[in-house]
Amino acid sequence: MLTCDKNRMNEKVKTFSTFGATGNGGITRLSLSPAALAARAEFCKRCKALGMTVKSDDMANLYATIPGEGDLPALVMGSHMDSVVQGGNYDGILGVLTALEAAETIVTKKLPHRHPITVVVWTNEEGARFDPAMMSSGVITGKFKKEDMLKSRDSEGVTFGEALDASGYKGSESDRLDFNKTLGLLELHIEQGPVLEAEEKDIGVVEGVVGMVNYEFTMRGQADHAGTTPMNYRKDALLAACDVIKYLHTELDTLDKKLVYTTGRIICSPNVHTIIPDDVRFTLDARHQDPDVIKQVVKIIENVPKEMDKCSVSYQELWSRKTVAYNKAMVSIVEEKTNALGYSNMRMYSGPGHDAQYLADVVPTTMVFVPSVDGHSHCEIEYTPIEKCWQGANVLLNTALEMDQHDSF
Amino acid sequence: MLTCDKNRMNEKVKTFSTFGATGNGGITRLSLSPAALAARAEFCKRCKALGMTVKSDDMANLYATIPGEGDLPALVMGSHMDSVVQGGNYDGILGVLTALEAAETIVTKKLPHRHPITVVVWTNEEGARFDPAMMSSGVITGKFKKEDMLKSRDSEGVTFGEALDASGYKGSESDRLDFNKTLGLLELHIEQGPVLEAEEKDIGVVEGVVGMVNYEFTMRGQADHAGTTPMNYRKDALLAACDVIKYLHTELDTLDKKLVYTTGRIICSPNVHTIIPDDVRFTLDARHQDPDVIKQVVKIIENVPKEMDKCSVSYQELWSRKTVAYNKAMVSIVEEKTNALGYSNMRMYSGPGHDAQYLADVVPTTMVFVPSVDGHSHCEIEYTPIEKCWQGANVLLNTALEMDQHDSF
Repeated sequence: MLTCDKNRMNEKVKTFSTFGATGNGGITRLSLSPAALAARAEFCKRCKALGMTVKSDDMANLYATIPGEGDLPALVMGSHMDSVVQGGNYDGILGVLTALEAAETIVTKKLPHRHPITVVVWTNEEGARFDPAMMSSGVITGKFKKEDMLKSRDSEGVTFGEALDASGYKGSESDRLDFNKTLGLLELHIEQGPVLEAEEKDIGVVEGVVGMVNYEFTMRGQADHAGTTPMNYRKDALLAACDVIKYLHTELDTLDKKLVYTTGRIICSPNVHTIIPDDVRFTLDARHQDPDVIKQVVKIIENVPKEMDKCSVSYQELWSRKTVAYNKAMVSIVEEKTNALGYSNMRMYSGPGHDAQYLADVVPTTMVFVPSVDGHSHCEIEYTPIEKCWQGANVLLNTALEMDQHDSF
Repeated sequence: MLTCDKNRMNEKVKTFSTFGATGNGGITRLSLSPAALAARAEFCKRCKALGMTVKSDDMANLYATIPGEGDLPALVMGSHMDSVVQGGNYDGILGVLTALEAAETIVTKKLPHRHPITVVVWTNEEGARFDPAMMSSGVITGKFKKEDMLKSRDSEGVTFGEALDASGYKGSESDRLDFNKTLGLLELHIEQGPVLEAEEKDIGVVEGVVGMVNYEFTMRGQADHAGTTPMNYRKDALLAACDVIKYLHTELDTLDKKLVYTTGRIICSPNVHTIIPDDVRFTLDARHQDPDVIKQVVKIIENVPKEMDKCSVSYQELWSRKTVAYNKAMVSIVEEKTNALGYSNMRMYSGPGHDAQYLADVVPTTMVFVPSVDGHSHCEIEYTPIEKCWQGANVLLNTALEMDQHDSF
């Protein structure tokens, strides 16, 4: 089997870890920040050195392409380069660097291929500087309106539009990815969870993105003085919230074991140690690959008692996302090539969102996961050993070359 | 029985409600603010018009005195005039105005009395502008160091010392209340709770201030991604917090029914809907008049499981307060005079702290409570009907004249 160069892969990870380095092992590389622009410059320099042509579209998405034979559709691989504040050296950037390493292997080994091969960098995936996340893949696939996105402001008042103009990477709309001229899209990403490590698998063969619902519950009670209000007069909204959370756990735990649900945010008001809380809100995030299980979750939410501990209980849906299924033929190629490389693997669904999920609506798409040590992500200790990074690049390389044999997916 | 003038009492409440009026029925009269200084000026003007001598000490506590016969110790009545932000027209100020009304009745009806009668106004009881609460009664009774208090800053960076210098009410340390020349101290206050109203009582005969403990619990788990971490891998600190709160309720509910306890503040970290919480802290405030019950509370806290839902559970005491017992002879006089006036009443303990509790350590002290409609306090809808305010003034008047017959308590 063909493989990439492990030392060169390691050098890529190490070099790109310097752009926005925090000094504590991680990076802060917010979208279109000086650190992110430095990373882009290095990416473009390396692509041009490999003889690739580099274009950027009106959202500053970068496309670096090795030409193929004739006018065939392009095989596209990549991810994003921006990070959250005090993020790690793997989320996003590893998908770019493994794609670049696969392309570099194809170029330097002069591996024959029919289709153009494009390494893509999506702008502002994290949404950490400019809300929302997956902004630019969202714009070109019609999920967001570009004019709204240009007005999105960072914490210092700079709009995305202003940052785009100043970046030097704003290209034209006509240079956006041409969906009709795309053979397929591959995104490698770190798992951002503990499953691959716990199951001792090298590679996650991603079948899709789980559907999710996100609700906010509100408990309304009565604010009274902690020292003067006998227990039987109280309407304690925090006690009610605890009971609703416990109720949800009890009910949701009866559903399919692959369901994940999280009460991650709780806001208590007035939140003073000497006052009984009168307004407590918490969120419930629930995800599963099977829409029927999500329907069961919604049923449980609808059946939550409307009164708990003498407090009213209400809820509202904040947002939801349908299950995204990746291209079955491409998923099978990833699995075959991973097996052929001798890497242990498992099929799985992605919990988090990725640019690939938006692209999946318009071009044949799939993803490859590599393990996250201890499941950590979006933090400075986020880590994937170089061996696993290299294995991921090898899966991309061999999958791309196999895809190149096909005319369409 | 002697009584005060109800219309005059009503006029006092109405007039003083204008100093710092919010326009929504309440007041914002932070300590030593222009609104508070205007209220002080009106108070001093009225006291001087009654022939009282007005002094202020080095903490700007005000003492307005009707002389008695010879050099006997003074009978002291009063409370505070400052409020919280968007507070009500009764907390604190009613204790000053009922004392002033009782004094005015004594002066205008030329009621004979042996002891000097002093109406006191304590500075910065709420601690809403300058931390801590009960600052100036605390300083003169040795609870706080004056030099520390002078450095306390408001939200705009002004120190208490600077506000004191600018107020025009800073007097000398030698004018502080002379504990050896004090017959006894009476403080009327709104109940700030629902008990008197629910029990249909006019007056609360306050026996003391309940002892309290305040603890903070900390649950430590593991922050992981909501979409990638299977339920059985999770260490969810918010779930653990809910279980600890439920555990505390179950155990504490077995103790004496007069125990009140509150989990009023909860802080969740990172508090993001897509991340499993790894650090949740909540406070437990518990109050009871019997120190043995408080010991039982502490025992329950000590027995909370050290691990819950795979998260560590720890706690620390933030502060505690011993039960304060008021002067039994004075409590009996309040009860007798309330009965003689034909007002329904009940003995009770104060849950909140008041200036009187600090004074109780150094001079014979007790308190009188009047009802709070719906138990509301520290809010603009705080309300006590004028009938109840007047009844409170009558209890003060008759208690004071009875105390005047005694040489000491």
